Amino acid sequence: MSPTRLPVPLLGVVPPLCTPLTPAGEIDTRSLTALVERVVVAGAGGVFALGSSGEAAYLDDARRRTVLETVCQAAAGRVPVLAGVIDMTTARVVEHARTAAGCGADALVATAPFYTRTHPAEVADHFRRIRDAVDLPLFAYDMPASVHTKLTAGILVPAVQDGTLAGLKDSSGDEGALRRLLVTLRGLGLDRTFTVLTGSELAVDGALLAGAHGVVPGLGNVDPHGYVRLYEHARAGRWREAAAEQDRLARLFGITATGDPAVMGGSSSALGGFKAALHLLGVIDCPATAAPQVPLGDTERAAVRRLLKDAGLLA
Amino acid sequence: MSPTRLPVPLLGVVPPLCTPLTPAGEIDTRSLTALVERVVVAGAGGVFALGSSGEAAYLDDARRRTVLETVCQAAAGRVPVLAGVIDMTTARVVEHARTAAGCGADALVATAPFYTRTHPAEVADHFRRIRDAVDLPLFAYDMPASVHTKLTAGILVPAVQDGTLAGLKDSSGDEGALRRLLVTLRGLGLDRTFTVLTGSELAVDGALLAGAHGVVPGLGNVDPHGYVRLYEHARAGRWREAAAEQDRLARLFGITATGDPAVMGGSSSALGGFKAALHLLGVIDCPATAAPQVPLGDTERAAVRRLLKDAGLLA
Amino acid sequence: MSPTRLPVPLLGVVPPLCTPLTPAGEIDTRSLTALVERVVVAGAGGVFALGSSGEAAYLDDARRRTVLETVCQAAAGRVPVLAGVIDMTTARVVEHARTAAGCGADALVATAPFYTRTHPAEVADHFRRIRDAVDLPLFAYDMPASVHTKLTAGILVPAVQDGTLAGLKDSSGDEGALRRLLVTLRGLGLDRTFTVLTGSELAVDGALLAGAHGVVPGLGNVDPHGYVRLYEHARAGRWREAAAEQDRLARLFGITATGDPAVMGGSSSALGGFKAALHLLGVIDCPATAAPQVPLGDTERAAVRRLLKDAGLLA
Amino acid sequence: MSPTRLPVPLLGVVPPLCTPLTPAGEIDTRSLTALVERVVVAGAGGVFALGSSGEAAYLDDARRRTVLETVCQAAAGRVPVLAGVIDMTTARVVEHARTAAGCGADALVATAPFYTRTHPAEVADHFRRIRDAVDLPLFAYDMPASVHTKLTAGILVPAVQDGTLAGLKDSSGDEGALRRLLVTLRGLGLDRTFTVLTGSELAVDGALLAGAHGVVPGLGNVDPHGYVRLYEHARAGRWREAAAEQDRLARLFGITATGDPAVMGGSSSALGGFKAALHLLGVIDCPATAAPQVPLGDTERAAVRRLLKDAGLLA
Repeated sequence: MSPTRLPVPLLGVVPPLCTPLTPAGEIDTRSLTALVERVVVAGAGGVFALGSSGEAAYLDDARRRTVLETVCQAAAGRVPVLAGVIDMTTARVVEHARTAAGCGADALVATAPFYTRTHPAEVADHFRRIRDAVDLPLFAYDMPASVHTKLTAGILVPAVQDGTLAGLKDSSGDEGALRRLLVTLRGLGLDRTFTVLTGSELAVDGALLAGAHGVVPGLGNVDPHGYVRLYEHARAGRWREAAAEQDRLARLFGITATGDPAVMGGSSSALGGFKAALHLLGVIDCPATAAPQVPLGDTERAAVRRLLKDAGLLA
Repeated sequence: MSPTRLPVPLLGVVPPLCTPLTPAGEIDTRSLTALVERVVVAGAGGVFALGSSGEAAYLDDARRRTVLETVCQAAAGRVPVLAGVIDMTTARVVEHARTAAGCGADALVATAPFYTRTHPAEVADHFRRIRDAVDLPLFAYDMPASVHTKLTAGILVPAVQDGTLAGLKDSSGDEGALRRLLVTLRGLGLDRTFTVLTGSELAVDGALLAGAHGVVPGLGNVDPHGYVRLYEHARAGRWREAAAEQDRLARLFGITATGDPAVMGGSSSALGGFKAALHLLGVIDCPATAAPQVPLGDTERAAVRRLLKDAGLLA
Repeated sequence: MSPTRLPVPLLGVVPPLCTPLTPAGEIDTRSLTALVERVVVAGAGGVFALGSSGEAAYLDDARRRTVLETVCQAAAGRVPVLAGVIDMTTARVVEHARTAAGCGADALVATAPFYTRTHPAEVADHFRRIRDAVDLPLFAYDMPASVHTKLTAGILVPAVQDGTLAGLKDSSGDEGALRRLLVTLRGLGLDRTFTVLTGSELAVDGALLAGAHGVVPGLGNVDPHGYVRLYEHARAGRWREAAAEQDRLARLFGITATGDPAVMGGSSSALGGFKAALHLLGVIDCPATAAPQVPLGDTERAAVRRLLKDAGLLA
Repeated sequence: MSPTRLPVPLLGVVPPLCTPLTPAGEIDTRSLTALVERVVVAGAGGVFALGSSGEAAYLDDARRRTVLETVCQAAAGRVPVLAGVIDMTTARVVEHARTAAGCGADALVATAPFYTRTHPAEVADHFRRIRDAVDLPLFAYDMPASVHTKLTAGILVPAVQDGTLAGLKDSSGDEGALRRLLVTLRGLGLDRTFTVLTGSELAVDGALLAGAHGVVPGLGNVDPHGYVRLYEHARAGRWREAAAEQDRLARLFGITATGDPAVMGGSSSALGGFKAALHLLGVIDCPATAAPQVPLGDTERAAVRRLLKDAGLLA
């Protein structure tokens, strides 16, 4: 069916692309293309469209399709495109997966079912049914903050062994469980065929030291060069330099927390921060996030600007 | 736009309809029509399609549309049809709301945003945007077990006062908060125009005593007559009889818990129990639940049969 | 060993006594005696010392002992004294239980273990070991908000059947599970020997209708007469009157939520509200709560005063 | 008041000592002394008594005192003794702190209040009151799995700046928040006076790379030499070797998960695993854990033995 350009394993920095919007809430395809260009030129190993940072939860199906078409065209085969297919359960995810395959995505990224009360056996079956329905490599997306269940080794390892899963995006924040998984996969000889990407964007040095193949950093939208440097340092064994780069990025990550929790939610503050930064950097035309997120105000934007300057990204 | 037959307030038993499926996983419209007929004849005050009991989370958009078309046709104007429009955030919910209006639904039932990290101000804005987009009465659906946030009085009361919300389906299980809300609404003179339906199907007598207008019981798919009797007892002030009926239904509710939690999730067990019962009662043709739910086995079906006999529903 | 005056089952209103403190943080035994006197005269069926409303978590062992000695002396055999023995696990709870027996308490009230990660089999064993160690009737205290696990029917019913537990204080807020438990106990003929007290102080009418024997209302410190009237209405089958009394108490319950959540925690606001009310009513000498709770300010105290007036408790 | 031998900052491996028990449940002081001796000889930078791994939650006050006396005597001034003072709120914690000071502990380790509903301002005040009451360096213990709240930078940083806190034991598993905290402390020039110890015993290489001063590994009871090697590799910049040692320890950590979750809780399995290993290694005389934990069976003990052999700790 769909040909894929996905390296095995996939290595390096795979930014979960923000989705630039027009003031009217439509997909800003020009800005999205510019964003893809910027991260590809910076040395990204791939791009991940329609993840949580891409506001997938806020986009209707038509807008999701526009995002995938735009990203696949912009990537132009230079890097693989991973497509988020986030929805509540199997049948709905398969619909998104078919669209993604039609748009030319190189891999799918799916969470466990959510909204419903789910059993590990159901989660495993869910991934198998997606894999059977659409012939693209499938990444499991572990995101308990949104999904409210954790993908355990008991779910993942058999699905790696039988070929259901090609990779994992681990945004669980559970570095201990990740370490145990990496050690288990290595013991089974699966660490060269199964890709493990960490979403813990403030502990990338540690994750790479532990054997992760790459990282999916939301902040990589804003500073892709920084994450690529971090990755290259780690790959070359320059761990102190990797840690120093990670420290710099950890300070910059303050752009995700300028919003007052008394007046806006975590998504509004984090995604608003990424977009305000991209706007200030001239990458995207409009910093708007999708409704009903609360827009950042002047104070928050000023704080973002200051952090960009401190990080050397803005003059 | 859409004319509505929704009484103000809506009173009585409003079963959240199960969605019968064929063995191939398609909507079984014959069985769904039979189910609607059965609950309408039993005296339901309305029907609620595409709620959690209706496996809305498991149905793709085409199947959701088929459900609404079937239910609206089967109800045939005898009782109002409430349509669940369950999805992650506003834009996606509005899509479902437009479909529901097109199918002839009489009201919409929407949760707060989920999957994302949300602030109360965003939740309130979410409801306002849905109400503005589609001209149908809007019920807020409080379902923290699935949505992972609670609809507080601080969100609800202003949205009642400004006309955004026409009603509440409270499946939070927080009877204390519900009592405080009912008292507040009464103090504001809003208890005759704003409908409060409890989803706490094992504490309906207490909720009606506290002033709720009606109930949305999943078990009402299986025993609509029982819930109608319970409602009528309460309406007539026969509280001991209402409690006795509720006790009988609480025993029957055992059909939702026949599944072994070591091998299946809560949805599989509960929805599988409802459907097994409807199949044993001859209402629907096939007890299958949507994938990836785990089907009930012989042991569970035998337990369901026994409970139906104990409740006097099966000879 | 210890003689007990505990009726079987225990009926009526059992206020979880607040613990009045001096400005220096010592137990104010005069005020505590006055509080006991007030609720006994109002018609309480028992008193519960050292529960969550009694700030047990905030009191060192010496102060806990002073509370029990004071309450037992003040009750003077007129009503049974239930003693909270709240601590992390078995050995620590047994120490408190021995003290309680020595002070003359008539029953013990213990939660499941907390702080640790616990299995249902361990919870059941925990209750058995407490019962074996100290010869007093034992109530299980279901308080998931503090303990972070729920006491399931699978834990409780066997412990009722083998005589480990004499009663349950259900502050879980899960009225559905409580209904199922009450129906199960009745089916086993245990509803006349095992006492079920609800801690859902805003849904007492419903709980009594469902078969609970009584209520443990924190607000009963402030308005014991109201809860006794509510109980008597229910006992006599005057359900509308019971509901009206519950509505009045639900409004008064506003005293627990005058504190701004941006500056103080839930305990500070709720316990501070009870104590401010008792101070305004002239029952206790000082409204202080135990450190490190944040004291109510003038605004909050004014709000409490207003609610007491609205409820007819203050001229 | 109490002299302390605590280095500033405290560096290296600080095992949270298991508490060996006799078959009758008393403190086995001989075995505890042997355990201290073993970790001190292995090169521990300190010992932490009465932490979660020390079953503090399961020990009454007399047994807690015996533990501290034994550990202080066994350490004999060679390494500092950190004393856990785990209890629900301030007054109770202060009692334990006074005991610890009397026993000769060199520092205190306290969690935020638990069981109660707490506000950050209350948590900060809690630490200040403990520090004021007992003149020993105070470590904050961030343990959301047990305490159910997280110690945020907003709580910690002011308490570091004003001298309330001397250190942090971070068992939150939130490596991103820890990274942000380390960067913040460094920016304030506090990283040389404030000690940060990670409890994430499977991600120690990453934590040290990020700037943590040391580690408090439960598994360090069983393999203190391994953790000391890991620490020394990191200190010398041999990061690949550090990671390889961490990988070996991650495999050995399987001893904490031999118990079937269907029959025992997480504490039973983890602490039972540590003690079974220490017993098999001949360090302690009896592998019993405190009641009501479920003891490991033959299958679990065999699995522990196998893992010890695989790790090269047992012939």
